[in-house]
Amino acid sequence: MWKEVLSVSFYRAVFSEFLATSIYVFFGLGSVLRWPSALPTILQISITFNLAAATVVQISWHVSGAHVNPAVTMAFLLGSRISLARAASYMVAQLLGGIAGAATLYGVTPAEVQGSLGINTVRSNITSGQAVAVELILTFQLVLCYFASTDRHTNANSPATFIGLSVALGHLIGVSLLGCCQSPLSPMHWGRLQCIRHSSQARGVGPAVYAYPWVAPATPVPILALPGLQPGVFLGRSSAA
Amino acid sequence: MWKEVLSVSFYRAVFSEFLATSIYVFFGLGSVLRWPSALPTILQISITFNLAAATVVQISWHVSGAHVNPAVTMAFLLGSRISLARAASYMVAQLLGGIAGAATLYGVTPAEVQGSLGINTVRSNITSGQAVAVELILTFQLVLCYFASTDRHTNANSPATFIGLSVALGHLIGVSLLGCCQSPLSPMHWGRLQCIRHSSQARGVGPAVYAYPWVAPATPVPILALPGLQPGVFLGRSSAA
Amino acid sequence: MWKEVLSVSFYRAVFSEFLATSIYVFFGLGSVLRWPSALPTILQISITFNLAAATVVQISWHVSGAHVNPAVTMAFLLGSRISLARAASYMVAQLLGGIAGAATLYGVTPAEVQGSLGINTVRSNITSGQAVAVELILTFQLVLCYFASTDRHTNANSPATFIGLSVALGHLIGVSLLGCCQSPLSPMHWGRLQCIRHSSQARGVGPAVYAYPWVAPATPVPILALPGLQPGVFLGRSSAA
Amino acid sequence: MWKEVLSVSFYRAVFSEFLATSIYVFFGLGSVLRWPSALPTILQISITFNLAAATVVQISWHVSGAHVNPAVTMAFLLGSRISLARAASYMVAQLLGGIAGAATLYGVTPAEVQGSLGINTVRSNITSGQAVAVELILTFQLVLCYFASTDRHTNANSPATFIGLSVALGHLIGVSLLGCCQSPLSPMHWGRLQCIRHSSQARGVGPAVYAYPWVAPATPVPILALPGLQPGVFLGRSSAA
Repeated sequence: MWKEVLSVSFYRAVFSEFLATSIYVFFGLGSVLRWPSALPTILQISITFNLAAATVVQISWHVSGAHVNPAVTMAFLLGSRISLARAASYMVAQLLGGIAGAATLYGVTPAEVQGSLGINTVRSNITSGQAVAVELILTFQLVLCYFASTDRHTNANSPATFIGLSVALGHLIGVSLLGCCQSPLSPMHWGRLQCIRHSSQARGVGPAVYAYPWVAPATPVPILALPGLQPGVFLGRSSAA
Repeated sequence: MWKEVLSVSFYRAVFSEFLATSIYVFFGLGSVLRWPSALPTILQISITFNLAAATVVQISWHVSGAHVNPAVTMAFLLGSRISLARAASYMVAQLLGGIAGAATLYGVTPAEVQGSLGINTVRSNITSGQAVAVELILTFQLVLCYFASTDRHTNANSPATFIGLSVALGHLIGVSLLGCCQSPLSPMHWGRLQCIRHSSQARGVGPAVYAYPWVAPATPVPILALPGLQPGVFLGRSSAA
Repeated sequence: MWKEVLSVSFYRAVFSEFLATSIYVFFGLGSVLRWPSALPTILQISITFNLAAATVVQISWHVSGAHVNPAVTMAFLLGSRISLARAASYMVAQLLGGIAGAATLYGVTPAEVQGSLGINTVRSNITSGQAVAVELILTFQLVLCYFASTDRHTNANSPATFIGLSVALGHLIGVSLLGCCQSPLSPMHWGRLQCIRHSSQARGVGPAVYAYPWVAPATPVPILALPGLQPGVFLGRSSAA
Repeated sequence: MWKEVLSVSFYRAVFSEFLATSIYVFFGLGSVLRWPSALPTILQISITFNLAAATVVQISWHVSGAHVNPAVTMAFLLGSRISLARAASYMVAQLLGGIAGAATLYGVTPAEVQGSLGINTVRSNITSGQAVAVELILTFQLVLCYFASTDRHTNANSPATFIGLSVALGHLIGVSLLGCCQSPLSPMHWGRLQCIRHSSQARGVGPAVYAYPWVAPATPVPILALPGLQPGVFLGRSSAA
């Protein structure tokens, strides 16, 4: 293990996760800024997330594997594809990257379009159980797509295209229901919450923060669900026609 | 045959069809929910189907071949690419997956946006003959694209991209004419009909169900048309320039 | 030459061009139907053409090379990549395919949304010289993209993705200026003109037909421009970094 | 060096940069024309830039490497991937190509839709420091994506898809903030400024030109930032899982 942690490539990979997550969060949150002349549609937000995810996966997948999301890192850890030290370092880098990306966006945009920087707000007519279930499904399909797209035995090419599509798919359905996230451990949450604490609770952010914890209990659930995703268990490579 | 049916990979493939179809139907039907603040456009619906199809094909194609649609399974059976046992198991898994996906969506969304869960309604100014013809053309191009994209001799890569495009193409034209489906044997039909029977016939679903059978006779037609699609018959590999 | 023309693969290729063009024209023209509740936007039309082109190229490229457009066939002939017999057969098949596709669409859609079935109308404030120039540029980038994407030495994969993008690119700019076409020899023109002659000159189609000939003189120009496109002349493979 | 500069492939590459940039600028600026019946949305502009970038990269990447942007050429020079002579020739070709593309568009469109031909205008409520920072981030992710997508050791396929996505990503965020550009050395700037000087300062272009210089000091900043992008420094290939 020490051999891995002390190598140059390990630190490159951790830095790559930091950089990729900060770019992803900068552009992702940037897509929900409330420009008065052109309020973003769900389609535009989803396509921006598609392109942001595809671009950062393309940038970082041959360096770090392009997780960009703690739920994905957790899944790879449970699937025995990466070491514990690598997983822990990735998750810290992702959370810091999320904060850096959101802070940068906060710094370069005029205050009147920032709103709550896109913090998630569960719709009032959805129960917390429904929100948890949706969050689970969105994360589930994303993690499955990661496993299917990064299997070196069946994919010769960059996984960026399909991970981008899968991220956008989650947003097309999730934005209306949850304000969208895909895993509550996500660096987007952390980035936004940190930024907002530093700056403004007056702009209606308070209720959003209070509404948010209802989704948080979902965190352990996708984690529990993930071992089943190991290729060797039920979606493994087969000799099917 | 027993050797195939009794293998672990066979059950993985059948489960994979179930899982892929339930995810596909969940997101596909999710795209037509009637959110009052943002009614979905045809473009948004079509793009969601594109991403949903591409994601589930990417997830399942190396396990089961990613049919996700009984019309495709039927075409592969008639083209002698899969066995009868596998085809029958796939179709049952797809229908159950469709019911599971639609039921899940029904469970996690507020009643006021469900509408008829996107059940197909043929436009009143289109005859049943025209509806059958359109359904045939939509299914025909999808099946052709499946055959062209999954031929191991000419494609090194995942067929997910092109199957996603082909699914979206059908919806861009079909949503206005038919409420869209691509093969009336589709698990989407079954999923929606089952869900709706369990829950509500008061929300205007009745007329849709009555209108629907006009398209149903199309079922045998794509099936009859399919043997002609065998690569060996008229669109086979050639030595063209 | 007789050996080529008498082979089964030659007839498969010609039939493939017919089939691909009819599907392309069916969906392409289908995207401009004037549904009262949802007039198509330029983005939606362009994306439909993208998906239609990508799907039919994917279906037919390993059979016939997926030209689908006489301007492309002419370019391949001038570039000495296909024989004269093949080029002539392809162009006839494309024109017949265009007629078949437009006629099918005409048959399955209600009269009130057909309009002029998307026949091209040059904007009144654009001169014929400007229209010819735009048509030339749209065709030029499409043909360049075909050459770059179908070179067997540099591309291992299906050219469908990039040809689809290039077709959509032309429409994003061309729809506003010309009603869009990419090569006036296109089967879309023929298909629409034939259909319209059979059916209606009362619905405002007349002016469009009279306006149309101003673009027709462009036909020989792209043809003259094409020999310069041969890889060996000025965009050939090089050893650049 | 003389051996490289005197080769035929060198001139093909320089011409390819000229041609690709002129097509890119023609379609990119064409997407922002102000058609009264259909003002372009940010999504439509971004998708047009996506398709334009992908098409010209596909056309020219095996000839010249498809830089199309002086910032990219500068990054490749600093990364020691191309020679000084090639970099200088590419940049001159790109600037001339930008002028040619903008002039062609200016020639083929009616005056009333030209507006300022899409010249960048920084929003009045954004400081010049913010504008420089956004410009830096947009260029940074584009250059990173170029490096990741054109590394011959990890990519077997055309980089066109991912460069297109990255260009569009920058526009989805940048159009609202800057009127968008990605590197102030860009041929788009030169093309537009040259065209506009030849023709009209009366149509409100004056203020835009005066507002523009605030972003210009950003030029040296991305250049200084680029050496850090060399694969060998901090995002290099690694043996990560």
